[in-house]
Amino acid sequence: MRHTISVLVENEFGVLARVAGLFSGRGFNIESLTVAETMEPSVSRMTIVTRGDDQVLEQIEKQLNKLIAVIKVTDFADTAHVERELVLLKVAADDRTRGELMNIVDIFRGKIIDASRRSYVIEVTGTEDKINALIELLKPIGIKEIVRTGKVAMFRGTRLLTPDGKDKERAA
Amino acid sequence: MRHTISVLVENEFGVLARVAGLFSGRGFNIESLTVAETMEPSVSRMTIVTRGDDQVLEQIEKQLNKLIAVIKVTDFADTAHVERELVLLKVAADDRTRGELMNIVDIFRGKIIDASRRSYVIEVTGTEDKINALIELLKPIGIKEIVRTGKVAMFRGTRLLTPDGKDKERAA
Repeated sequence: MRHTISVLVENEFGVLARVAGLFSGRGFNIESLTVAETMEPSVSRMTIVTRGDDQVLEQIEKQLNKLIAVIKVTDFADTAHVERELVLLKVAADDRTRGELMNIVDIFRGKIIDASRRSYVIEVTGTEDKINALIELLKPIGIKEIVRTGKVAMFRGTRLLTPDGKDKERAA
Repeated sequence: MRHTISVLVENEFGVLARVAGLFSGRGFNIESLTVAETMEPSVSRMTIVTRGDDQVLEQIEKQLNKLIAVIKVTDFADTAHVERELVLLKVAADDRTRGELMNIVDIFRGKIIDASRRSYVIEVTGTEDKINALIELLKPIGIKEIVRTGKVAMFRGTRLLTPDGKDKERAA
């Protein structure tokens, strides 16, 4: 099964390599990973998308929890949550295709953030499905380059995922 | 100096841990990192933001290039490029603050992607500066939780960064 996992970590040397090593050590491929600071500069938050046997993943999550730098591990499976991803696409743009391109960008509520005589850079956010649909639509026009952030995820509603140990429902 | 570096890699076990290990092994902290698939499913693209001595970083880049799984390393310093980041923010929303919150979301061209009685989840993209400015504006209202993807970057214009070895200006 496919899983989206958040890991809150102390922002210190080597923690990313150790976390990534735990996955690869058990033959788990990381499909996407993002890591960046939270509001607390000493704490970073990783979002990892991976696929594999649920029991092995449970073992990985237990091992993650044993790492001193790891504050909290959360698997978003079976929880109400939102997921989003950002993609930048460099797409061929000429007199013939420009109109269709603008229509697609509009439909997907994208933004054109760079334009040259022959290509545009488009910025779009959405769920993975939406971004995959956009890519399929743009392929015939000509995608020259793509960079995706990978997913970030957050619980719906007032439930929080923060370092203080309470990820339960509470007054937000 | 602060650097934004792209690394194109073969999508195989352990490459993320090895790349991250090269940075931590030389005492370089990774401020943010994203990794996700490109259009070529066998190739992933990392974007790493790091800060430190330029000469040491040059050594790290040389060592990255020696890793078999690494296809290409590009430092965006001194090149015309666009950078973007996605952030999800869970913000307190009550009758008193809701109007101001909606105004700020509007100004930053954000989207409200989840709403409960007491909090909203806001999605915003932009440069790091823009996102930091948004966070400062929202702090008095009450930020409950934050997750950032970290940066992705792409050359402006027709210059490409793709696995075929030509990242020079060419017909896009």
